[in-house]
Amino acid sequence: MLYLVGLGLADETDITVKGLEVVKRASRVYLEAYTSILLVDQSILEAYYGRSIVIADREMVESNSDEILRDAQTEDVAFCVVGDPFGATTHTDLVLRARELGIAVSAVPNASIMSGIGATGLQLYNFGQTVSMVFFTDNWRPASFYDRIKENRDIGLHTLVLLDIKVKEQSLENMARGRLIYEPPRYMTVAQCAEQMIEVEEDKKGGVYSADSLAIGAGRVGGKTEKFVAGTLRELCDSDELLGGPLHSMVLLGRRAHELERDYIRAFAMNTETFDRVWAAEYGKQ
Amino acid sequence: MLYLVGLGLADETDITVKGLEVVKRASRVYLEAYTSILLVDQSILEAYYGRSIVIADREMVESNSDEILRDAQTEDVAFCVVGDPFGATTHTDLVLRARELGIAVSAVPNASIMSGIGATGLQLYNFGQTVSMVFFTDNWRPASFYDRIKENRDIGLHTLVLLDIKVKEQSLENMARGRLIYEPPRYMTVAQCAEQMIEVEEDKKGGVYSADSLAIGAGRVGGKTEKFVAGTLRELCDSDELLGGPLHSMVLLGRRAHELERDYIRAFAMNTETFDRVWAAEYGKQ
Repeated sequence: MLYLVGLGLADETDITVKGLEVVKRASRVYLEAYTSILLVDQSILEAYYGRSIVIADREMVESNSDEILRDAQTEDVAFCVVGDPFGATTHTDLVLRARELGIAVSAVPNASIMSGIGATGLQLYNFGQTVSMVFFTDNWRPASFYDRIKENRDIGLHTLVLLDIKVKEQSLENMARGRLIYEPPRYMTVAQCAEQMIEVEEDKKGGVYSADSLAIGAGRVGGKTEKFVAGTLRELCDSDELLGGPLHSMVLLGRRAHELERDYIRAFAMNTETFDRVWAAEYGKQ
Repeated sequence: MLYLVGLGLADETDITVKGLEVVKRASRVYLEAYTSILLVDQSILEAYYGRSIVIADREMVESNSDEILRDAQTEDVAFCVVGDPFGATTHTDLVLRARELGIAVSAVPNASIMSGIGATGLQLYNFGQTVSMVFFTDNWRPASFYDRIKENRDIGLHTLVLLDIKVKEQSLENMARGRLIYEPPRYMTVAQCAEQMIEVEEDKKGGVYSADSLAIGAGRVGGKTEKFVAGTLRELCDSDELLGGPLHSMVLLGRRAHELERDYIRAFAMNTETFDRVWAAEYGKQ
């Protein structure tokens, strides 16, 4: 059996009891470690689970999945995923491959940022589609998120923005020279995301949002040091210190936002005066 | 401290290790039991957690929350919620009240149907806003879901439809006579939902979807007997036997559905021929 085990959002104790039983008894334990990360190191997980863990990087999962699935017709293999196992596209691929090989599959759900973001106090049924924000470079500034956000904003909905992480990336030079040297991991902050969003709006001038639109920055959702800040995109450009270390996520507010949501998130405002003024002008409209 | 503890979707082992530690050491343990249910009885939870549980019905949570919060300034109170603690509006109210009383709050996230529905193989970032479907009566047939689905369908997105549950409801007669006699619990099935959806489209004639639109019925997501069926709404009207007991949820497909999603859900088709024909005509469009 192939078990897809969700690990939840923050630390080693976020695994479910069901998931922990699977990990403890599986023949092999993999950890998918490129679409998201936990806030604790592999060694802490290994000590807590009482198992050694094989890190499955993108190349292994996408090009060498048969190694992960080896003998899973007769043995139990645990493939651990931060958040919920079906949060990332990649894992449905793995299940399709398992089906082809006649391997039974069982998934152990867990918290995903897609629902965990409800901890902001924003109502999950007020969210439209989720978008991703990647690190811009000089010549790669994909802005497809902008059209998706427009679709959500047109109907008044919130948008969850998932922020890029770069782990085990090679520099262009090292890649060209075939040197397996990796850059230090990078995690996009809410401030970087807000800057890129403002930049794209200034470029496209579609009026989808502005530097004065309200958003919530979320840090380490579900963790002991979980932190939320609410402010305009302009204010959030200066939220790095306030929000602390990775992982970050962001929600851009939709105008349908409800008063109950306002009452909840107002406590997170970087500047209550701005918050109240912008809210009164733009939000709480049905 | 007030702890909001997510219990996940299916049984007593879906609690996280972190959540179980909170429940074991709290002064009092409540279980919110009206927005969703687990697939196991209270007695099984109590035996597994080693604690007796107070069932918190809607009246208690909405009108008597100070009893739940009693002494939580100095004691730990665990308020357990099926799924994720922030899945339902009601619980942000409880947190707001706790804040007023100077009570610290901590949430233990868990799987929610809002993300757990990814187990269908549909990609979570292809979902628009979530809607709810209530049991229609002769004179109460709220169809606000229809406009929401239209908004999602117009931009090609999937819609998660959460199905009504009725627990601890009085009949009108018993309510009028002040008799505290409750009706047996009722859980809407995918078939009932499909029927109501077709009925509303026939009434409104807005062309938002048709009896030939594809949808996925989900039964007991995350449970041992988890089951998915894919078919047209017309086919899903006959899915009760196939899908089995509660809880059910449904996803109405959006036209942006991706080929990878098709490959995954085709295995759930009630009728592969219909599925392929309808897919080719309406889906996989970007």
